[in-house]
Amino acid sequence: MSYNTFGHLLRVTTWGESHGSALGCVVDGCPPGIPLTADDIQVWLNKRRPGTSAFVTQRREPDEVRILSGVFEDARTEGQVTTGTPISLMIENVDQRSKDYSEIARSFRPGHADFAYFAKYGVRDYRGGGRASARETAARVAAGAIARKILGAGVTIRAALVQVGEVKIDRSRWDWTHTLQNPFWCPDPQTTPAWEQYLGEVRKRGSSVGAIVEVEAVGVPPGWGAPIYAKLDAELAAAMMSINAAKGVEIGAGFASAALSGEENADEMRMSPDGEVEFGSNRAGGILGGISTGQPVTARVAFKPTSSILNLRRSIDETGQEIEVLTKGRHDPCVALRAAPVVEAMMACVLADALLMHRAQTGGGSFAPGPGASART
Amino acid sequence: MSYNTFGHLLRVTTWGESHGSALGCVVDGCPPGIPLTADDIQVWLNKRRPGTSAFVTQRREPDEVRILSGVFEDARTEGQVTTGTPISLMIENVDQRSKDYSEIARSFRPGHADFAYFAKYGVRDYRGGGRASARETAARVAAGAIARKILGAGVTIRAALVQVGEVKIDRSRWDWTHTLQNPFWCPDPQTTPAWEQYLGEVRKRGSSVGAIVEVEAVGVPPGWGAPIYAKLDAELAAAMMSINAAKGVEIGAGFASAALSGEENADEMRMSPDGEVEFGSNRAGGILGGISTGQPVTARVAFKPTSSILNLRRSIDETGQEIEVLTKGRHDPCVALRAAPVVEAMMACVLADALLMHRAQTGGGSFAPGPGASART
Amino acid sequence: MSYNTFGHLLRVTTWGESHGSALGCVVDGCPPGIPLTADDIQVWLNKRRPGTSAFVTQRREPDEVRILSGVFEDARTEGQVTTGTPISLMIENVDQRSKDYSEIARSFRPGHADFAYFAKYGVRDYRGGGRASARETAARVAAGAIARKILGAGVTIRAALVQVGEVKIDRSRWDWTHTLQNPFWCPDPQTTPAWEQYLGEVRKRGSSVGAIVEVEAVGVPPGWGAPIYAKLDAELAAAMMSINAAKGVEIGAGFASAALSGEENADEMRMSPDGEVEFGSNRAGGILGGISTGQPVTARVAFKPTSSILNLRRSIDETGQEIEVLTKGRHDPCVALRAAPVVEAMMACVLADALLMHRAQTGGGSFAPGPGASART
Amino acid sequence: MSYNTFGHLLRVTTWGESHGSALGCVVDGCPPGIPLTADDIQVWLNKRRPGTSAFVTQRREPDEVRILSGVFEDARTEGQVTTGTPISLMIENVDQRSKDYSEIARSFRPGHADFAYFAKYGVRDYRGGGRASARETAARVAAGAIARKILGAGVTIRAALVQVGEVKIDRSRWDWTHTLQNPFWCPDPQTTPAWEQYLGEVRKRGSSVGAIVEVEAVGVPPGWGAPIYAKLDAELAAAMMSINAAKGVEIGAGFASAALSGEENADEMRMSPDGEVEFGSNRAGGILGGISTGQPVTARVAFKPTSSILNLRRSIDETGQEIEVLTKGRHDPCVALRAAPVVEAMMACVLADALLMHRAQTGGGSFAPGPGASART
Repeated sequence: MSYNTFGHLLRVTTWGESHGSALGCVVDGCPPGIPLTADDIQVWLNKRRPGTSAFVTQRREPDEVRILSGVFEDARTEGQVTTGTPISLMIENVDQRSKDYSEIARSFRPGHADFAYFAKYGVRDYRGGGRASARETAARVAAGAIARKILGAGVTIRAALVQVGEVKIDRSRWDWTHTLQNPFWCPDPQTTPAWEQYLGEVRKRGSSVGAIVEVEAVGVPPGWGAPIYAKLDAELAAAMMSINAAKGVEIGAGFASAALSGEENADEMRMSPDGEVEFGSNRAGGILGGISTGQPVTARVAFKPTSSILNLRRSIDETGQEIEVLTKGRHDPCVALRAAPVVEAMMACVLADALLMHRAQTGGGSFAPGPGASART
Repeated sequence: MSYNTFGHLLRVTTWGESHGSALGCVVDGCPPGIPLTADDIQVWLNKRRPGTSAFVTQRREPDEVRILSGVFEDARTEGQVTTGTPISLMIENVDQRSKDYSEIARSFRPGHADFAYFAKYGVRDYRGGGRASARETAARVAAGAIARKILGAGVTIRAALVQVGEVKIDRSRWDWTHTLQNPFWCPDPQTTPAWEQYLGEVRKRGSSVGAIVEVEAVGVPPGWGAPIYAKLDAELAAAMMSINAAKGVEIGAGFASAALSGEENADEMRMSPDGEVEFGSNRAGGILGGISTGQPVTARVAFKPTSSILNLRRSIDETGQEIEVLTKGRHDPCVALRAAPVVEAMMACVLADALLMHRAQTGGGSFAPGPGASART
Repeated sequence: MSYNTFGHLLRVTTWGESHGSALGCVVDGCPPGIPLTADDIQVWLNKRRPGTSAFVTQRREPDEVRILSGVFEDARTEGQVTTGTPISLMIENVDQRSKDYSEIARSFRPGHADFAYFAKYGVRDYRGGGRASARETAARVAAGAIARKILGAGVTIRAALVQVGEVKIDRSRWDWTHTLQNPFWCPDPQTTPAWEQYLGEVRKRGSSVGAIVEVEAVGVPPGWGAPIYAKLDAELAAAMMSINAAKGVEIGAGFASAALSGEENADEMRMSPDGEVEFGSNRAGGILGGISTGQPVTARVAFKPTSSILNLRRSIDETGQEIEVLTKGRHDPCVALRAAPVVEAMMACVLADALLMHRAQTGGGSFAPGPGASART
Repeated sequence: MSYNTFGHLLRVTTWGESHGSALGCVVDGCPPGIPLTADDIQVWLNKRRPGTSAFVTQRREPDEVRILSGVFEDARTEGQVTTGTPISLMIENVDQRSKDYSEIARSFRPGHADFAYFAKYGVRDYRGGGRASARETAARVAAGAIARKILGAGVTIRAALVQVGEVKIDRSRWDWTHTLQNPFWCPDPQTTPAWEQYLGEVRKRGSSVGAIVEVEAVGVPPGWGAPIYAKLDAELAAAMMSINAAKGVEIGAGFASAALSGEENADEMRMSPDGEVEFGSNRAGGILGGISTGQPVTARVAFKPTSSILNLRRSIDETGQEIEVLTKGRHDPCVALRAAPVVEAMMACVLADALLMHRAQTGGGSFAPGPGASART
């Protein structure tokens, strides 16, 4: 992690502002020979795209990705593959409305990064939030698509919203299929209409709410991650907290761990009938000592409410004058509705990086306790 | 963050196992000319030391630190100062009881990193948890002492426990002075006896519980941290999650942000009578867009219960045999009781690194909106 | 340095292949508030551009650079300045002739990276050398333009060729003005016609030769660079050796140091009449202990002959068949003729990075021995 | 490379001053399961040790290394192996004569790093050169011993001096066996007595000379190293230039490349009778496009004369006063005589790091063009 690059061996450098001509990223360190076309990336970008429901920003962006480097035809398969050189991805900004920004150009919008950027840099691109805009996450999703390719079919990553504002799902009704059938990434069919009504009211009030996204990665073998400061959970924490509006990250039982007993917390192990390692529970979220155990890697990320609201709030401007601010125009009652694909992408990037790091240090050999055994949940 | 090093410009590389001859760290990138003696570090180590109350491990370690390099007499002051070269710190292990480990040498203790280390490396130092032992955090605390020196007197960092097991403090009774007067880092005088009784019972049952540590840094000027992947909150998240037994990190309102309204969440700004920036609340935890705002930087870290308990748990061994495991000997009902100094140290290291990063890119000039103004809470 | 990124705090990530749609770089860590337009970069790119004389590749590339992010209008000056966010630069490839590559697609050209890339990656973009093409250096020159802006007017960087094939200049006739008046970056007016004739003959033979580039940076204050592994000379060595066709790097007296006496080698110091530090010679090349001394930083870089020649050479192809290879078409008798701007750019990038690193650790305060003194040559 | 750490995945952080209590390094990222004892390291340290002949410093240091962490008994072999956690090595300084330094404490010795350190840091450990002393290279040699273990028996690294002062060897008489039988690492039996006489005279004059070290690594498979900024030759250049007193680095034909023809420079390839890739020459020094070709990796490093000489030289002190300086006591007529083991160690570290990097990105599979073929010289 440094400024605008994340990852150690799979290094993703993103660039671009909300209302610049384009945004994109350079994905460096990708293994060679992996089939990759723009379509492979586009499919994930489409899931994150603005304007997909009445509850997300109505900015109309096709978010069409171009691969500018790092791929070439494979003589053997005649398909396009990665070459091991940096993959440059670019998404042009289309709907950066050339509106009059004079009103907000010198104002610090509460909850936004306006004041902090100005305090740090003394200059900022105020149009649509500039670099601090959630548009930057399109580059993450594009990079995540490449990370998924590196991980291969053995690892499944999927996210869902488990809380919107004050309304939580009922986990007993969890249905992954349903998450893809509603605009809220809601895994609980009975909660979906409740969120729809709730968010309609929030929007009508010109207000906003936050949400909590849960993500899991199934199929991660034991051994990924590394003590002490490249722990898989520490990498995930940084990756998730770097997403716009994120305010909290937890792994496995997370904050609830505090109130568990030692007996509840320590997931018991046993051998399955066919000789594989099994755990009796997954309070650890698939990570012990910073290293994957073979159980699903699970995390939750808390997002704060959209800072742009239609109601007046007190603030100041660049000259130190007290002002009142409200956000006109496109309004997004819950920015976290579009966070699920981003959370998935960051999980994919962290895991692909961990795979490469693990392969580097150990050769990648997987563990088998006893004859014929391998780790699974 | 990489394997055993954290930080970008203030780089801390720790080394050592629980029962090796010594542990320590190399602190690289420290500015020159900062007065530093072993005593300056020892005072913080003493706060983390084992054996300080009936409720923490009874291992007897003086944790005496030696400075092996990176300091020299300053001709002008005749005191010892940092020279800008790497500071090597070493703490010898004294009380690594040479007991018989044959019983646990091949067993995977539930909740511990035993299985994960073995799966990754195929070999592990099983004595006292080896590298995964919380003894490693002594090196962090030592490094944190140097980080505090870099930050100077203007930044105050302090931590407290706000929940132990199921028992939370009453925040209305918060008293920082009290935290230093009880073995639980408890800021609420009325909760202290409750925790004492509660933990006594937990210990009697041979069980354990987790806890939540809250930390704040007051005096951080606006402008530290950097978008997008070196966000101050992302750095904090990684640093905190890298601590042993940490399972969750939140900044400001954290997970509670999800249920806030946009109005509640976006901290309003105004000018103080003497022309400084003031915020009406601190839901952001002092960080917007990954950059400090001048408000106190606040975070909470959740710790899971001690994995070593006196009660039998099912597990497996290296050969894939099913076994039952219990931890004999020294027993620690709440490992998080000793986490507060470690959380403080990680906050100090992250902030000192952010200071250097900020100074590098911007020259370190601080922001003043309007004439004579500066940011404060 | 890592894969496709160089620099610690001023981080330059380049991407692109010779015959892809575009190439470019992301410059991260640039201080904010620096005036920067595309023209500021274009002027340096024009110096490196192909097709500028009969002795360099006749590929016709306008090498027009676009700034895609990281700049914005400064409200105070109404000019465009850096914002502190990543600066994405893109240069479209125009003259990537869509010729038939079937002949060389499976061949390993001697002296080229063909075999090594294939051995490493199993796949490669063979068109025009792909990623290994010297076209990548356009991105370095663009980044170098930004680095020069960071360094400011106080630091002057300039390069010249001192040897082409077997023909060396006479240093006693050194004239910096002349270097900009001939296509060979030759500082010796009497050597220029000799090189012209010599290279004409080399070209007629379908052969090629190498060259040596010398570079100096005047105005670097004492204190930049850092022991032990971020030594300014070590950084320069890596940066220069990363340039295509570079085979050697030396600082100051370089390889000739071996035959110096200790008396000759150790540059004496004295105070100038106006109280500044002066050196009696500059065998050190402006660097002692890896740290700048205030003298000009000087280096030389050796480049091998262009590997593409018109004469048949023995080689093998991807299937292990023995073949004979020659390069048809555009031919470049001395690739190093275009290296001078690249060497300058790498010097600029290393120095700007060193400036930021120095400012981070020390605050950037410069040294003055005794009252009113400062270091100079 | 950053401050006091080198390497990407095999990360070596060194610490310590010449006259501090100890020096050492932390080697992070070492693969697990590699047999390693202190003796494995000591054997290489003994080759670098001071006091081994009349021509090197007479400081008496046993240079006894201790392994403080990162190794443990392997249950299967009962031998001590690396565990994958950081390996901390410490060497105590024994013969740091407690002499009176008052005379040089404020002086800047010409050719030394005294002035540069003071200009940067404002404070310095002047005893024996402090951090800038060649004693730091003991830590490199220790790390190099571990790197050799990672590389295994398939890679042979060996260095020799090819020039001392003005006296060069005759390469036609090269005999690797002889290098280990004389105190000069001289590969030419007839040159050894010439150097002995020559250095005796230099020493008698109280003067010093430089030297050139040549190193080769045989057995490096094709594919190590990576474009563009982690090129194997760029990494080597940085590593070698970071050694004390190094002023130049060249790979393969190096600076002589400038005068080669394209035909001479481009090493031809053919298939050996048993189906392996062979090269007709090795002007490239085993590296093309920054990636190893399977040929021996060859480099040369130029070292300047010892800066400490017995003759008076003009200089200044910290207060800006002009002074005359000479070095009393232990005198070393050619510091490069002890550089060969250090050059070997840096080669080993760079290669082991490249091995891990290559394994990370590609899985480490080696290349075979055509059936049954593999690369060799």
